[in-house]
Amino acid sequence: MVTQTSDELSRRQELELTVWDVIVLAVTIVVAVLIPLEVVFDSLESGWIVAVSAAASVVLAWDVVLRLGGSSGEQGITGDHEVGRSEYLRSWFTVDLLAAIPFELLAIAPGVEGSSFEGPIRFLALLRVLRITRVLALQRRWRLRTSMNPAVLRLAFFAFWIVLIAHWISCGWVALDGAAAGHPELSPYHQAAYWTITTLTTVGYGDLVPSGGGQVAYAMAVMALGAAMYGYIIGNVATLIANLDVARSRHLQRMERVNTFMRDRGIARDLQARVRDYYNYSWETRAGRQQSEMLSDLPPPLRTEIELHLNRPVLEKVPLFSGADDAVLRELALHLEPTVCVPGQAIVRRGEIGDELFFINSGTVEVRSYDEAQVVAVLGDGDFFGEMALIEQSPRANTVNALEHSNLYTLDRASFERVLETFPEFAGQVREVAARRRAESDEVGGA
Amino acid sequence: MVTQTSDELSRRQELELTVWDVIVLAVTIVVAVLIPLEVVFDSLESGWIVAVSAAASVVLAWDVVLRLGGSSGEQGITGDHEVGRSEYLRSWFTVDLLAAIPFELLAIAPGVEGSSFEGPIRFLALLRVLRITRVLALQRRWRLRTSMNPAVLRLAFFAFWIVLIAHWISCGWVALDGAAAGHPELSPYHQAAYWTITTLTTVGYGDLVPSGGGQVAYAMAVMALGAAMYGYIIGNVATLIANLDVARSRHLQRMERVNTFMRDRGIARDLQARVRDYYNYSWETRAGRQQSEMLSDLPPPLRTEIELHLNRPVLEKVPLFSGADDAVLRELALHLEPTVCVPGQAIVRRGEIGDELFFINSGTVEVRSYDEAQVVAVLGDGDFFGEMALIEQSPRANTVNALEHSNLYTLDRASFERVLETFPEFAGQVREVAARRRAESDEVGGA
Amino acid sequence: MVTQTSDELSRRQELELTVWDVIVLAVTIVVAVLIPLEVVFDSLESGWIVAVSAAASVVLAWDVVLRLGGSSGEQGITGDHEVGRSEYLRSWFTVDLLAAIPFELLAIAPGVEGSSFEGPIRFLALLRVLRITRVLALQRRWRLRTSMNPAVLRLAFFAFWIVLIAHWISCGWVALDGAAAGHPELSPYHQAAYWTITTLTTVGYGDLVPSGGGQVAYAMAVMALGAAMYGYIIGNVATLIANLDVARSRHLQRMERVNTFMRDRGIARDLQARVRDYYNYSWETRAGRQQSEMLSDLPPPLRTEIELHLNRPVLEKVPLFSGADDAVLRELALHLEPTVCVPGQAIVRRGEIGDELFFINSGTVEVRSYDEAQVVAVLGDGDFFGEMALIEQSPRANTVNALEHSNLYTLDRASFERVLETFPEFAGQVREVAARRRAESDEVGGA
Amino acid sequence: MVTQTSDELSRRQELELTVWDVIVLAVTIVVAVLIPLEVVFDSLESGWIVAVSAAASVVLAWDVVLRLGGSSGEQGITGDHEVGRSEYLRSWFTVDLLAAIPFELLAIAPGVEGSSFEGPIRFLALLRVLRITRVLALQRRWRLRTSMNPAVLRLAFFAFWIVLIAHWISCGWVALDGAAAGHPELSPYHQAAYWTITTLTTVGYGDLVPSGGGQVAYAMAVMALGAAMYGYIIGNVATLIANLDVARSRHLQRMERVNTFMRDRGIARDLQARVRDYYNYSWETRAGRQQSEMLSDLPPPLRTEIELHLNRPVLEKVPLFSGADDAVLRELALHLEPTVCVPGQAIVRRGEIGDELFFINSGTVEVRSYDEAQVVAVLGDGDFFGEMALIEQSPRANTVNALEHSNLYTLDRASFERVLETFPEFAGQVREVAARRRAESDEVGGA
Repeated sequence: MVTQTSDELSRRQELELTVWDVIVLAVTIVVAVLIPLEVVFDSLESGWIVAVSAAASVVLAWDVVLRLGGSSGEQGITGDHEVGRSEYLRSWFTVDLLAAIPFELLAIAPGVEGSSFEGPIRFLALLRVLRITRVLALQRRWRLRTSMNPAVLRLAFFAFWIVLIAHWISCGWVALDGAAAGHPELSPYHQAAYWTITTLTTVGYGDLVPSGGGQVAYAMAVMALGAAMYGYIIGNVATLIANLDVARSRHLQRMERVNTFMRDRGIARDLQARVRDYYNYSWETRAGRQQSEMLSDLPPPLRTEIELHLNRPVLEKVPLFSGADDAVLRELALHLEPTVCVPGQAIVRRGEIGDELFFINSGTVEVRSYDEAQVVAVLGDGDFFGEMALIEQSPRANTVNALEHSNLYTLDRASFERVLETFPEFAGQVREVAARRRAESDEVGGA
Repeated sequence: MVTQTSDELSRRQELELTVWDVIVLAVTIVVAVLIPLEVVFDSLESGWIVAVSAAASVVLAWDVVLRLGGSSGEQGITGDHEVGRSEYLRSWFTVDLLAAIPFELLAIAPGVEGSSFEGPIRFLALLRVLRITRVLALQRRWRLRTSMNPAVLRLAFFAFWIVLIAHWISCGWVALDGAAAGHPELSPYHQAAYWTITTLTTVGYGDLVPSGGGQVAYAMAVMALGAAMYGYIIGNVATLIANLDVARSRHLQRMERVNTFMRDRGIARDLQARVRDYYNYSWETRAGRQQSEMLSDLPPPLRTEIELHLNRPVLEKVPLFSGADDAVLRELALHLEPTVCVPGQAIVRRGEIGDELFFINSGTVEVRSYDEAQVVAVLGDGDFFGEMALIEQSPRANTVNALEHSNLYTLDRASFERVLETFPEFAGQVREVAARRRAESDEVGGA
Repeated sequence: MVTQTSDELSRRQELELTVWDVIVLAVTIVVAVLIPLEVVFDSLESGWIVAVSAAASVVLAWDVVLRLGGSSGEQGITGDHEVGRSEYLRSWFTVDLLAAIPFELLAIAPGVEGSSFEGPIRFLALLRVLRITRVLALQRRWRLRTSMNPAVLRLAFFAFWIVLIAHWISCGWVALDGAAAGHPELSPYHQAAYWTITTLTTVGYGDLVPSGGGQVAYAMAVMALGAAMYGYIIGNVATLIANLDVARSRHLQRMERVNTFMRDRGIARDLQARVRDYYNYSWETRAGRQQSEMLSDLPPPLRTEIELHLNRPVLEKVPLFSGADDAVLRELALHLEPTVCVPGQAIVRRGEIGDELFFINSGTVEVRSYDEAQVVAVLGDGDFFGEMALIEQSPRANTVNALEHSNLYTLDRASFERVLETFPEFAGQVREVAARRRAESDEVGGA
Repeated sequence: MVTQTSDELSRRQELELTVWDVIVLAVTIVVAVLIPLEVVFDSLESGWIVAVSAAASVVLAWDVVLRLGGSSGEQGITGDHEVGRSEYLRSWFTVDLLAAIPFELLAIAPGVEGSSFEGPIRFLALLRVLRITRVLALQRRWRLRTSMNPAVLRLAFFAFWIVLIAHWISCGWVALDGAAAGHPELSPYHQAAYWTITTLTTVGYGDLVPSGGGQVAYAMAVMALGAAMYGYIIGNVATLIANLDVARSRHLQRMERVNTFMRDRGIARDLQARVRDYYNYSWETRAGRQQSEMLSDLPPPLRTEIELHLNRPVLEKVPLFSGADDAVLRELALHLEPTVCVPGQAIVRRGEIGDELFFINSGTVEVRSYDEAQVVAVLGDGDFFGEMALIEQSPRANTVNALEHSNLYTLDRASFERVLETFPEFAGQVREVAARRRAESDEVGGA
């Protein structure tokens, strides 16, 4: 029970298709495409078609055998958990078995061909197509397990099903002896495909129209289906395309909202520029805030792990934390909030009430006394500032400006005090630095 | 006033159709389909049509008599409350009465047939169709009362109305002597239906087109209606299909968001796998968080009942609660938060600040001292842990890891203290267990 | 400055059209419809058209005179505030003036008719159509000021503009000598309207197609416009229809969500029924919670007024408040939360921790001791209960069940204490009732 | 590193196209339009086409040279940061170079024309079109940097791409010798454009239909693309149009919601009018609340700057703040909440519990004792009131009514106390005014 290591988990959670799975999948698709063609066109029964049919049946039959033996990569295609033989027999076995029987070959077997059985048996071959439903299960599983871009995946499956359904509709139209009148220069299947697309997209030129009761009824069904399908496409395509790069499109939307707001309020142009710079930089460096929204959904322990993963490089840069206990780091990782600054931006201002301690992850800031315009210090990667307002509960003593694009992390008063209280050693280190700085600052002040 | 028991309530709240209701409903639909056909085709007046018309009139007339008597299952179809006779007379009576009169039979009565009254009386028969509006009332009522999947219900009604409206439009086209030229091989109704679908779906092949002022005007109206209807379908179909399994589709969306986020941030693959495992497991076992969102809408007493219903099995498993007062259980049920763990996940870590008490509903966890890698205890269903950090306000003394997929319930510090304060007996039991454990732990530590 | 009373405000805020406004509006629409017809059909210039043109010009000219005099109901149509003459001259004057000149009559004046000026002058008449833009201003104003159902209003304006635009497109098609070939049995305008609808709805039968460069270019423009318009319709029609009865459709959506949730979690059927009953009752009596969301947007003083308006009947029913100060009522109105109960539902349970005081607006509840199943009291409209748990900070002493559908108002602990503190007289009254009840309850307990 | 001033930032953040950038952009578009036409029509190779081709090549070649030299305004079109020569060589160089080669002129060079190379070389000219992808980069950059209305921008780019794609599709149709049968009166390109629009908008008259395998296949591809494009348009056009004036449409939506709510609840008409007046006025003067939502996204220092920018005029009007420290102003700017009042509205009422201090930005209010209907004072721009309830923690002593539409700013108790505490001088001034008023008020009360 305790045997599942994280490696195994990783394997179980990634969707992994073995070579055999891919072969079976390809054969399944080939069958779904070929069988309807074979049913409607007798003329297709040349030698290579027979060969393909036979080969497909062999592959699919062997797959059934493997699965019954339980030795194949069952989990690759079926579902969420490894299934035993009995579960397999109850669920997919029938579909797999039917797909493995080469009905279309039986129909041309000596003794059957030409007899009254040929038609029905040929028709039974359509049952082999049912195995394509396995792709649905695969699709569902893939969306859960993959680490690929999900919108790309969804678009691909979307296109796959539309093409397949259009193919089936075309075969149905051929079976009804679709109008040869309109485009005599085309082959029947080409005509049917053209009619199908014309109808599903609701273009409806009218150069190919149904004739006779059967075709008209079929056309009505296809049009009704087309309306629903089209509605579904329209309802999804905008979302799908927007989702191809969710992060970017969300950023663009926010920029548009921000720009509109600033334009309406008549914000000064250089302040506008700074705000835009802030958003663009924070998006480009992925140092945004959406991270916290996403994480708030996870249970605290997993969240800690992810935040540690994301913030470890930050914390490791801060010399103050070099000797810190793992528990302190974990606690800090949970309460550090990332923020970014653009050049020229005042981060804290002398005289303000301050509630935050700042850690510099990357970038440079200058500490200067507000009035005298004298630079007290220049701080860089791994430094921290703003601790005095927290320790002494006084207004900010100095102004701090960003000199370049900087990534900072802030720790608010409540978390700071809690950490100090719980981890006395860490508290000592912070106070030491604060004391040293105060001394320096007094010196400068005295100068 | 106090006589309404929960059983009666249950009956009043479920939509229940008696056999008679179903018969009346079926007859109403038959009338709505048949009457327009009878009006446009004189040829339909064969013997069985007359019989059906007569039978329908008898059924509907008997229904009116029953309702006036007040003895029928009125509430089944009409509306939200049992209505008295006078209310019935004011509301549905006229529609029901008109629907019960067999105008189309009167039109062929001796003395009327052939006279100048035949046409108008035949036309009056269309008033019988109005009774179909009762389906609207039923539909509304059903959506409120049913415990069926509402999206399935909505799709079904949606399809029902579209088919019925298309049928009426076709009848109207026939009445205007729709173009026989295009498809002479089809019956007039078949042609009309084909034209209707072609037009409503905006395919518009052009093999059947209106001719003459009347038809052109009719076609314009149908096209305008079709545009609006199509817009409505498109606006709804994507939502409807997405809602067929709301829970699943919301889960898939979340997984996609999570996957995108983790891929963008370059989270380690085995951590990614654990996070995915967490979401998949918590969705499969329905031990999610959406429950609390849903419940926050209900007034506290009903919420308590539902939470008790959902959490009772949890609480009953915990030996600690075996003798607890009902009030304690209720209080706890309101504050327990469900959470799940995946194998290998650290639930609490030695040295962390802890604010929660954990109950194990199902699963196994190991308690181990962080440094020594020594397993202090293995806890299973019904056990609890984490109480020491709450009682003694100290950092976590041990690390607890999940050994398998586990369902836990957490109680936060505020609720814990409130419950302890209000229910002293329960507080005593918790302290006792905590004391025993501390002793054991010290022993182990001493070993 | 202080002269604006609430009556005046009311008048200023409601959109009020005088009879003259309506006449001018009607004439504006007639002009927008007629003038394009006159421009494309010379044949229309029969006597009555001339009369209508002349009459319209007189009306519109008189309107300009009135507005210049400043005595007309300018605010009715123009915009948001009464505008002076100079503002009128700057804004709508030109459009109004152009609309008042009967160019089409000038074109057939003796000396002009037949000359080379006739064509251009006839064309200038199209400038009169521009006045229809006033309807846009009216529409915008109406949406802001009306108390009508806004979705109905929006649908009506939507339909109005679509019909008007289709009319203009048809006139344009006629002007280009639209294909007489397709439907020779129809009048040119009838043909053009049919072509327009066929094209805008993207049906495109193909029985009427453009011929010649001009028509083809025109058709391309109309198709492009149609695609955009259709997209706009589709994007709006579903929302509009859903908004026709927003409250109902939101209720239905919530019911569906609740039903799905309860079905998934396997809640007991009679509890399901109670929950549904709760939602249905609270929706039917409009005693819901959306009120607070809506109000949270308003500034506190206006919110108080609305809440007083809504809650005054509630407060007046409570004898306790009969002598209360207006300030107390206002304070209470701000903090009372409406809630409803369904028969058989426990409102408070003995032993629970209680944070709320309940006022009964309508309905009946029984107070009973949980164990003994003995009814201590039955309370009705205007009574209150639950005060003891607040005053004595003890668990609920009794269980209270609803006997019928009841509307209650709750006051939470924080508001209760604040009101008690600020209004000592009211506090005294509450304590008095509480003391009397405690005595009664002890008696009953002693019995 | 410290050299970037805010002016430079402003320049870097605004998208600035130099004249040369615009010329290159125009040439790029001309090439994208002309080259496909040249490829499909040999007849176009008249003199001026050769001239245009040559000129375009010269411009584009010179652009490549400039960029390699690094002296051109690279940032104008490429991307987000100034790129060096090496980065340029890796990224856009190939595309730019190909676009600069006049393949179509080479094809008619002596020795090539008529040879077997002519066809392929002519075809290679299509590679020049690829440079249009630079417009995508520009578009992306523009959305980030511009302060224009983003919806207008997006609509314009949307239209640009649709027109360009339709042009390319038309050229493709011409290349396949598109059906000359349908409209012999039109030029081939005109026919092709007509067919393209007819198909993309799914109108499909059927007067121009594909014939032959190639065209049919092409038509199928265009229809499939059209369906997706149309879906994308439909999914976006409603949003885009709604976003043309986001602020207005959001205001309209809110008004509709408010109106529906008040109509449903039967609020008195003059109260309804006041509420509508409140919303309309607060929207017209842009003194709304959405500001805080937008700002909450920014880091505190930038937020302070924007709020200072927006609130400085307010604060400067208040005499109390004339001598205040910059830090006080900054602190206040962060906590002032804007609110508006309509005439006749009571802002505070005698006897209420008060938690806010009010500053009058513009407008007039009267202070009156509730009972006596006696006006104690009339306050105007720059005055403040409501401080006594905060200082003495007592209920409001007077009622204050708005006399006209007023813009107020409120400061809540917590911020008020914090500011008083941190800035003792400011606290002194406030107390002084309060004391003076109390004296006056007592006098009035004594009168």
